[in-house]
Amino acid sequence: MLDPNRPNPLRDPQDRRLPRIAGPCVLVIFGVTGDLSRKKLMPAVYDLANRGLLPPGFALVGFARRDWVNEDFAQIVHDSVKEHARTPFREEVWRQLLEGIRFVPGDLNSDESFDELKRTILELDEARGTGGNHAFYLSIPPGLFDEVVGQLRRHGLAEQRGGQWNRVVIEKPFGHDLTSAQELNRIVSSVFPSQSVFRIDHYLGKETVQNMLALRFANQLFEPVWNRNYIDHVQITMAEDIGIGGRAGYYDGIGAARDVIQNHLLQLLALTAMEEPTSFDARQLRSEKQKVLAAARPPLDLAAHTARGRYDGGWAGGVKVRGYAEEEGVSPESTTETFAAVRVDIDNRRWAGVPFYLRTGKRLARRVTEVALSFRKAPHLPFTNSDTEALGSNALVMRIQPDEGITLRFGAKVPGTQMEIREVNMDFAYGGAFTESSPEAYERLILDVLLGDPPLFPQHEEVELSWRILDPVLDYWASTGDKPEKYAPGSWGPQSAADMLARDGFAWRRP
Amino acid sequence: MLDPNRPNPLRDPQDRRLPRIAGPCVLVIFGVTGDLSRKKLMPAVYDLANRGLLPPGFALVGFARRDWVNEDFAQIVHDSVKEHARTPFREEVWRQLLEGIRFVPGDLNSDESFDELKRTILELDEARGTGGNHAFYLSIPPGLFDEVVGQLRRHGLAEQRGGQWNRVVIEKPFGHDLTSAQELNRIVSSVFPSQSVFRIDHYLGKETVQNMLALRFANQLFEPVWNRNYIDHVQITMAEDIGIGGRAGYYDGIGAARDVIQNHLLQLLALTAMEEPTSFDARQLRSEKQKVLAAARPPLDLAAHTARGRYDGGWAGGVKVRGYAEEEGVSPESTTETFAAVRVDIDNRRWAGVPFYLRTGKRLARRVTEVALSFRKAPHLPFTNSDTEALGSNALVMRIQPDEGITLRFGAKVPGTQMEIREVNMDFAYGGAFTESSPEAYERLILDVLLGDPPLFPQHEEVELSWRILDPVLDYWASTGDKPEKYAPGSWGPQSAADMLARDGFAWRRP
Repeated sequence: MLDPNRPNPLRDPQDRRLPRIAGPCVLVIFGVTGDLSRKKLMPAVYDLANRGLLPPGFALVGFARRDWVNEDFAQIVHDSVKEHARTPFREEVWRQLLEGIRFVPGDLNSDESFDELKRTILELDEARGTGGNHAFYLSIPPGLFDEVVGQLRRHGLAEQRGGQWNRVVIEKPFGHDLTSAQELNRIVSSVFPSQSVFRIDHYLGKETVQNMLALRFANQLFEPVWNRNYIDHVQITMAEDIGIGGRAGYYDGIGAARDVIQNHLLQLLALTAMEEPTSFDARQLRSEKQKVLAAARPPLDLAAHTARGRYDGGWAGGVKVRGYAEEEGVSPESTTETFAAVRVDIDNRRWAGVPFYLRTGKRLARRVTEVALSFRKAPHLPFTNSDTEALGSNALVMRIQPDEGITLRFGAKVPGTQMEIREVNMDFAYGGAFTESSPEAYERLILDVLLGDPPLFPQHEEVELSWRILDPVLDYWASTGDKPEKYAPGSWGPQSAADMLARDGFAWRRP
Repeated sequence: MLDPNRPNPLRDPQDRRLPRIAGPCVLVIFGVTGDLSRKKLMPAVYDLANRGLLPPGFALVGFARRDWVNEDFAQIVHDSVKEHARTPFREEVWRQLLEGIRFVPGDLNSDESFDELKRTILELDEARGTGGNHAFYLSIPPGLFDEVVGQLRRHGLAEQRGGQWNRVVIEKPFGHDLTSAQELNRIVSSVFPSQSVFRIDHYLGKETVQNMLALRFANQLFEPVWNRNYIDHVQITMAEDIGIGGRAGYYDGIGAARDVIQNHLLQLLALTAMEEPTSFDARQLRSEKQKVLAAARPPLDLAAHTARGRYDGGWAGGVKVRGYAEEEGVSPESTTETFAAVRVDIDNRRWAGVPFYLRTGKRLARRVTEVALSFRKAPHLPFTNSDTEALGSNALVMRIQPDEGITLRFGAKVPGTQMEIREVNMDFAYGGAFTESSPEAYERLILDVLLGDPPLFPQHEEVELSWRILDPVLDYWASTGDKPEKYAPGSWGPQSAADMLARDGFAWRRP
């Protein structure tokens, strides 16, 4: 939108380094009528423009089966920006953005529609000087990827020539097991080279997830105790307080483990457990993540160290809610879990013997995502027993959402006592410490796609390694033929999950 | 005041252990008309009674050169309690306390006065069943100790027979150099055995000082980095924002180093640097403190690694204030410093090469006491240079007063940037975490005297070791014949103090 060579009045004040503004290009969104596009992608594009981070000559093309002209689509974008953008609406930014907005009506399996898309893109290449650089955002079900990447190839929109690029952006789920993930990768990589494929795990775009790297590696204080000598176990939790809503069509047959553990939680595990990369460039970071995922393995005793459940009907938050089996669109034979917990062990020198417990679920007591490192008890306590009866272990908790921040749980002396210790919290709130507001994950990720800067995007190798960890668990659950154990809405999941940790001498946190 | 065998309605709710209530005894305070007695000692006695921690048959005797009878003194105690006690005034507690209050008028060098004191004590022994247990609190100048302990000996009030005890409590300053401290100790120990001498450093009675022990030894997280491998230096600060007020008579000729570094700051150093004691009983704790003080030494280069100053006149906090030299009662030839800073090194395996910087001063920018451990920078930063230009070192700060608590300073990612790190604070506020209010230091210390529980009282060995560290510094300053460098009121001290740290590559914190 702005000439990077002129003083930029909209220059992003958050980043003291030189602004990272990509060259001119076209962003094409397939599935532009969907929720993700309306609530996240379009507002993120506007917010980037507003921060002065979009290139001059940027263009946005929507593709969908709608009887729209450019102006209709522009109105949709406008409304979505007004409603969902993070930064204030400014007329001059919007007018600049508007110049590059186009709409192509059509079917994904129609050659004519892609002919029209090609014409539109070529026209924009010319008019806005994009140099033939295009990003294709597939905000569509994975079953349609094959068709779309085929169309792009046939229309010459997947070629990489000289400095010119065509990139494809895909969203999870990256398959529903190892085999299907490999098939999906075969389809995409038959058309796009791996450096042109951007897999979005929007969790990795979150500030607090990136801050995990800063916390570990920009500080001297934490890394010395970040290992099996001092940590006795790790809990990684992503809890939702809502049910599946109207999403049975997507969710039933997928379930909690595939939906969350395979991507978000194993990525959080990788960032928590990996060795320090030489630098944060994509190759180094991915290499460390792959190394630790390759060392991670599912539990040997799948019955003892996995748990699954599904929410029952009842009362949650003062409202009567349906059980999963009664949700609209759920098959009566469904064995889909809405809660999954699994123990993962990491067979390397740093983590041997330290269990990582991963859990996720819907309709739990509250919405929270966190990584909690639990420290061993102090090896010797120069206190009498009664002083310390209530004393547990120290914990370092990285709170991903909501209330992003860090909590340190440790023992302090109760005032007025001889030497009674009680656990207290020391808190750092990301929101309180910085006046800068956190960009949405999609702002960071879309900008990185346009820049071709891939450190935050998992590669196929990581996806495959994650499925290798999860597949045995899914196979075991399928082999039992059981339906998942019921749990009360608003609880912390099924009894079997509590038993699983109790067996190891631990207890789940109630964050 | 209360029978420990009956259910106690005033039972201290703060301590879940069995109440520590001493047997019946008499507490005699010499110098009962002084500020310390009125503002701290009498209120602390009442607060202990109010918490149900004073023994049945407890008696309080005041001794002073005043033409008072018991009722006059009781009124003084009453007024002081009303004005300064921490806990609410309750008539029934006061009435119980009142029964044991006596006053003895007289001179410290008058045999008749001590005859009268003896009669009063014997009467109380009989009436209240004290079993002959007495504590003598010498809230008087050290020059009078010789006289008083001699009188106590001559009147048979220093004897230890069977289970019966006579204890003496003395306040700093414990001498003004090693020789005078040894002389003072000779005087006191010629009459009282060392286990009957209680030296009060009221800092050690503070909750936050005791919490230093809990923080270090009840937790797993801190001790692994509490050494030369991770810490590059330590700063111990006690700053006051006020001048000497009307206390020139005490202060001139003493100065900041003797008044604060010799006792409070070197005790804080000992608690910060000592090895973990086997237990917190007095013998173990003192043994570790003595060990580390014996390993501590003054700087080799006294010119480079000490600094002193005296406050100038000027404006501080919106008020025009006098310089030290103009304060009433200060001798024109005075070379007394109101600011002192000294580097102390500890020659042991844990701390070799880690300088401890101690500073104290009056009329500084604000009132604060803290111990700050500064960590080395992370050994490798996988960030580009520009990301981390503003990145300093981690610090763990134990805030002693005011705002008691703990602060952890570390680097976090600035939201919206690629990977820019900025320093942020994680805070634990002692006051916010506990509903229990902190007892005054004197409550804890007086109770410990009556119980004969001495872990928080420095022994003569510690006093002597502290003087061994400070004496060379004081001698060096005296040898220069210079007056201390002036510093502006409301500043952080003289330029030479800043230079002293800059020379070592550090800078003083501005807490």
